[in-house]
Amino acid sequence: MRLVNYQIGQAKGRLGAVVGDVIVDLARIAEVEGTVLPDNMLAFIQGGKQMQALAHGLLGKSEGNWPAGVTVPAASAKLLAPFRPNKIIGIGLNYVEHVEESSRTLDTSKELPTRPVLFAKASTAVIGPDDAIHHNANLTNQVDWESELAVVMARDAKGVSEAEALLYVFGYSIMNDISARDQRRSGLWFFSKGQDTYAPFGPYVVTADEIPDPHALDIKLRVNGVTKQDSNTKYMLFKVPTLIADITSGVTLEAGDVIATGTPSGVGAGRVPQEFLQPGDVVEAEVEQLGILRNHVVAV
Amino acid sequence: MRLVNYQIGQAKGRLGAVVGDVIVDLARIAEVEGTVLPDNMLAFIQGGKQMQALAHGLLGKSEGNWPAGVTVPAASAKLLAPFRPNKIIGIGLNYVEHVEESSRTLDTSKELPTRPVLFAKASTAVIGPDDAIHHNANLTNQVDWESELAVVMARDAKGVSEAEALLYVFGYSIMNDISARDQRRSGLWFFSKGQDTYAPFGPYVVTADEIPDPHALDIKLRVNGVTKQDSNTKYMLFKVPTLIADITSGVTLEAGDVIATGTPSGVGAGRVPQEFLQPGDVVEAEVEQLGILRNHVVAV
Repeated sequence: MRLVNYQIGQAKGRLGAVVGDVIVDLARIAEVEGTVLPDNMLAFIQGGKQMQALAHGLLGKSEGNWPAGVTVPAASAKLLAPFRPNKIIGIGLNYVEHVEESSRTLDTSKELPTRPVLFAKASTAVIGPDDAIHHNANLTNQVDWESELAVVMARDAKGVSEAEALLYVFGYSIMNDISARDQRRSGLWFFSKGQDTYAPFGPYVVTADEIPDPHALDIKLRVNGVTKQDSNTKYMLFKVPTLIADITSGVTLEAGDVIATGTPSGVGAGRVPQEFLQPGDVVEAEVEQLGILRNHVVAV
Repeated sequence: MRLVNYQIGQAKGRLGAVVGDVIVDLARIAEVEGTVLPDNMLAFIQGGKQMQALAHGLLGKSEGNWPAGVTVPAASAKLLAPFRPNKIIGIGLNYVEHVEESSRTLDTSKELPTRPVLFAKASTAVIGPDDAIHHNANLTNQVDWESELAVVMARDAKGVSEAEALLYVFGYSIMNDISARDQRRSGLWFFSKGQDTYAPFGPYVVTADEIPDPHALDIKLRVNGVTKQDSNTKYMLFKVPTLIADITSGVTLEAGDVIATGTPSGVGAGRVPQEFLQPGDVVEAEVEQLGILRNHVVAV
């Protein structure tokens, strides 16, 4: 399923599944069929496998012959951030060529990390597709992009082995891990990466059954149509099962927590000369099978 | 008010106020008086000034003559973590002598930071008074303590000036910012400080009206009764109004978010020779007027 948090007009966002050119409202189709599904994605994730199977069954039964009132044309809906995760754990320096470019221009080591480099992004930083990334010139002149595969956890996970890790994944999405490079503090990244609007997320969460191998996906980023990042998730240094096993060796991941798995080379700070986002820019993060996450930059 | 999340037997924790040697259940006293207060602290914080005034009035009206069924002897209750914050923002290197000791033994600079050093602790790390701090020898041999004044935000805050910052504070508590010093990753502290049980929090949240100056409080820490940290919050490098103004210049703080304002000198990593917590140890963080936050260390 290709799940969205869709909005019509000024109404509250609702959980939907994109099927062809329509969005099927999952709570409404369930109601028509005399059963219950939630109207928001986090509750749906927390509902577990049984709830997914119910939704899958309802979609399969009615596809192409939708009951009245359960679909909207996809083109008429605004997509919001899929949901607001509780924890967002970012992975630094997780593509080999990005380690190299970072060491040239940022203060990171040129050695490959021997353990995943973990940091947190604030949940209050999350925005959705087509929302504005803030450019506050009083705080930063170095707003930078990072296209990333986002892993959405299915259920609580602690002490998970690499072999079982993918069983804990609900699905995949895109996160653009925006940074103010000049707002690192004594080498720490929280303020650099945790500011409001610095975590564009979406447009879809695609359930894990549709992505059998998360390490075979082209990953790209464009600024104003010009390609800046162009790689593949197969080049990750620490792959998703290793990340989940490593994080959950000490930190409980909960249903709906997100891992932003790191970015390939081609970030603005690593370019010669350096390039950063400016008000008016349009930035598109794209991951194969997961769509395009498009945002624009506004001065605030 | 000295607010707690108290538990009797195996029941769910409930919001109470400590008055003398009893805990007054706020939801129950409100019910007796024909009004409504929530049974958990986060909802109470989110309820704002009006809700606080209501609680204050009910407590004043009945003090010493409590209606039946609204109090329990404080000695009979277990205190839980006051609540689980959404965001916990830690401040690194915020006491001058701690900057010096850190530069000797950790990888931080000996220069005083020119801006607050911000990092995040995971909300899943929170435990309450008398809960166990995990010592996982497979992950770390350097479990360390940091006694800190914790600031609890009253309401959503963005772009707050220093002059108005304290108006956004709900109250104060204690956080022991536990670290696995050997689990920093490329200089980042998330895994070092974000592991489960690494954020002991409590025992009380004392409302801001009772702490007119948060920078005049003795702050201490003892391990097995031996004093390891002994300072005063007046020695903070960046004080609470500056921290709130700095953070909210880019990051929205929400009601119930917590700022752990940094630790004075005397941490284990800074001692000669270094000392770290071992299974069986009892660690007590104490801040004047805010009580003692006692935890023990267990091997896992």
